[in-house]
Amino acid sequence: MATITKISPLAPARFPDLPAIDGVRLAATEAGVKYHGRKDVMLAEIAPGSAIAGVFTRSSTRSANVLDCQLKLGATVDGQGLAFVVNSGNSNAFTGRAGDESVARICEKTAEVLGVPAAHVFTASTGVIGERLPDDRITAVIEKLAGDLTADAMEDAAQAIMTTDTFAKGATATVDGVAISGFAKGSGMIAPDMATMLVYIFTDAKIGQSDLQVMVSDLNAKTFNAITVDSDTSTSDTLLVAATGASGVDVTGSQAFADALHGMMLDLAHQVVRDGEGATKFVTVEVSGAVSENDADKVARAIANSPLVKTAIAGEDPNWGRVVMAVGKSGAEADRDLLTIRFGDVLVADKGWVSPDYREEQGAAVMKDEEITIAVDLGLGDASATVWTCDLTHGYISINADYRS
Amino acid sequence: MATITKISPLAPARFPDLPAIDGVRLAATEAGVKYHGRKDVMLAEIAPGSAIAGVFTRSSTRSANVLDCQLKLGATVDGQGLAFVVNSGNSNAFTGRAGDESVARICEKTAEVLGVPAAHVFTASTGVIGERLPDDRITAVIEKLAGDLTADAMEDAAQAIMTTDTFAKGATATVDGVAISGFAKGSGMIAPDMATMLVYIFTDAKIGQSDLQVMVSDLNAKTFNAITVDSDTSTSDTLLVAATGASGVDVTGSQAFADALHGMMLDLAHQVVRDGEGATKFVTVEVSGAVSENDADKVARAIANSPLVKTAIAGEDPNWGRVVMAVGKSGAEADRDLLTIRFGDVLVADKGWVSPDYREEQGAAVMKDEEITIAVDLGLGDASATVWTCDLTHGYISINADYRS
Repeated sequence: MATITKISPLAPARFPDLPAIDGVRLAATEAGVKYHGRKDVMLAEIAPGSAIAGVFTRSSTRSANVLDCQLKLGATVDGQGLAFVVNSGNSNAFTGRAGDESVARICEKTAEVLGVPAAHVFTASTGVIGERLPDDRITAVIEKLAGDLTADAMEDAAQAIMTTDTFAKGATATVDGVAISGFAKGSGMIAPDMATMLVYIFTDAKIGQSDLQVMVSDLNAKTFNAITVDSDTSTSDTLLVAATGASGVDVTGSQAFADALHGMMLDLAHQVVRDGEGATKFVTVEVSGAVSENDADKVARAIANSPLVKTAIAGEDPNWGRVVMAVGKSGAEADRDLLTIRFGDVLVADKGWVSPDYREEQGAAVMKDEEITIAVDLGLGDASATVWTCDLTHGYISINADYRS
Repeated sequence: MATITKISPLAPARFPDLPAIDGVRLAATEAGVKYHGRKDVMLAEIAPGSAIAGVFTRSSTRSANVLDCQLKLGATVDGQGLAFVVNSGNSNAFTGRAGDESVARICEKTAEVLGVPAAHVFTASTGVIGERLPDDRITAVIEKLAGDLTADAMEDAAQAIMTTDTFAKGATATVDGVAISGFAKGSGMIAPDMATMLVYIFTDAKIGQSDLQVMVSDLNAKTFNAITVDSDTSTSDTLLVAATGASGVDVTGSQAFADALHGMMLDLAHQVVRDGEGATKFVTVEVSGAVSENDADKVARAIANSPLVKTAIAGEDPNWGRVVMAVGKSGAEADRDLLTIRFGDVLVADKGWVSPDYREEQGAAVMKDEEITIAVDLGLGDASATVWTCDLTHGYISINADYRS
């Protein structure tokens, strides 16, 4: 497999300084699961009494790790520590019973070394689908990782879980005396044989398990579930949030905390789009005036996933006819004559036709920007939705077709 | 706009000999709607007493022509002739009230010249979305077209409705003393600013309007609605079938006739896929063992529309992990451990993992073929579905992103 080394033109300038979270220690190392000469396994140890919330892929062919995490979530025991173990290079998806056994062995080894229940160890694997996970290479490094645990290894951990990501993704927020730090990898089904978006977020806030889960599920719908690179859904997507409570600040019902968490989840989600395969444009699709949120979401996704809209953006072509097409195929209630379409601030179409004042040069100027907003008002109701995506370029084809696995 | 002149590598050797249909005369000419130096308008005159059935795009932003045809279908008067008028170069979609007026003027002029009711004139337009249709250029050639009408102009008509199709598409069948001839254009949203699949089929069989409509709607679901190039739905898709009854052979309830019509509709549908933008592979996706036809269809479309599956096919990569991914994201009921996947005759995956006897060279050999079958058995029930598609290549990106309109 060819290595994609060129950093995305949409990457942030640098990895942010992530504050250490009281109650969380991390470590990363080289286990040689598939890659060589780079860190590929990370361990996070989380203090007893922490709340854990999670959201996972809804794929019916999800990985052994995801199935195991889903069983464990919400069944954790008070007063016992927890751990996250993640490897890159192999997704342990569609590996039958052998995949389940690999997860069990990793959890048992980690539990033994850290002195926590195996039911408190949450694993994830990202990489090739369908190859046996060499779990012995992972269990062989757990003791070393446990010895290396430190509060300041967020960036190391973010790097260890990358597959063909072109940059490590981190974000942070502080609010009302609590800190939140997190990192992510991925961009849909990211590269040849590569799968998975993984997100890990840590905070020293104090909040109950079920309150945290409700908050995270709600925010997930507006952040990670509102991005699309290529409409393909990974078998391993995992978002885990750990709240250690070490700050002593209770954030139950705190809107300020929810807003801060929302902001950094959105930041990480946008970084995933910015590392989309072959991406050269960051695109925001805003739909308003729908009769229901479900309809608004349908229209936004139809636009964001349309190969013809995405190739037009790649070609810097203000091809609003393709946006009309995508609205039409979405299945949402729409009336041609009430529709308005804007590219950036430019009114392109209204009243069932191109806007009388619109000139092609205006649209073409907007399309030259690196960040583009397409806004559609259906003119029927009050519901709205926003989805983020990237363009579809020769780079996507090269990454997924030209290089053989 | 760049002209795509290279004929698809998947094109048939030649346009078939289409038998003339008693009761149908056609003509085509150069009207200069947008293109120059080629025929771009076709007229078909259909004898009084013919039955007309039609199927149209379900897009909520469908063209003025489609809306007009839908109103007219089933409201035709016995004993009066009918006509089809089709132009290429401009789709008359998203053109507001002006689009409706263009359709009305074309219908009135055709009605006057041929001596048929305007309510019996069915129009279609294919090409750029959102530009005013210069209908005066079309009405200006109706008299000439009427003077040129002949029973032997099927291929001329098929050429006149092409946009950036790389070959004209025709098919024919004869059964029990009746003949069927038809032609089609398109391949999803075919090229820069181009839209529309159009299909016209003529037969001298005798059958009532409503019987014909039921048969055509049913067959459409298994043919034109079962192909996908890029998952984008045109604003102008139109299928019209005219049965003149001139053979005197009543085919009401005839399975043989339905089978013959099915065969030639499938032939035309496959030709549309073979002219898919940038296509180098013709792909059949067969799904069986689903709990419902709806589920089987969902899985087949998820595979056929997955950019990652389609790029893997382009790269001749037997990447069955991406097929597993597509099954998982489809939303259909599926059980990892009951799934089997075949590439051609090769059993690739079963019992939740790669098949023990599978060797990568076997899959790689299948992927080198120009025609590839991907078969998925969900192992849950008796329902099945088949969808046809093509691969996703640099050619698709070049056609839709590199060339600006």
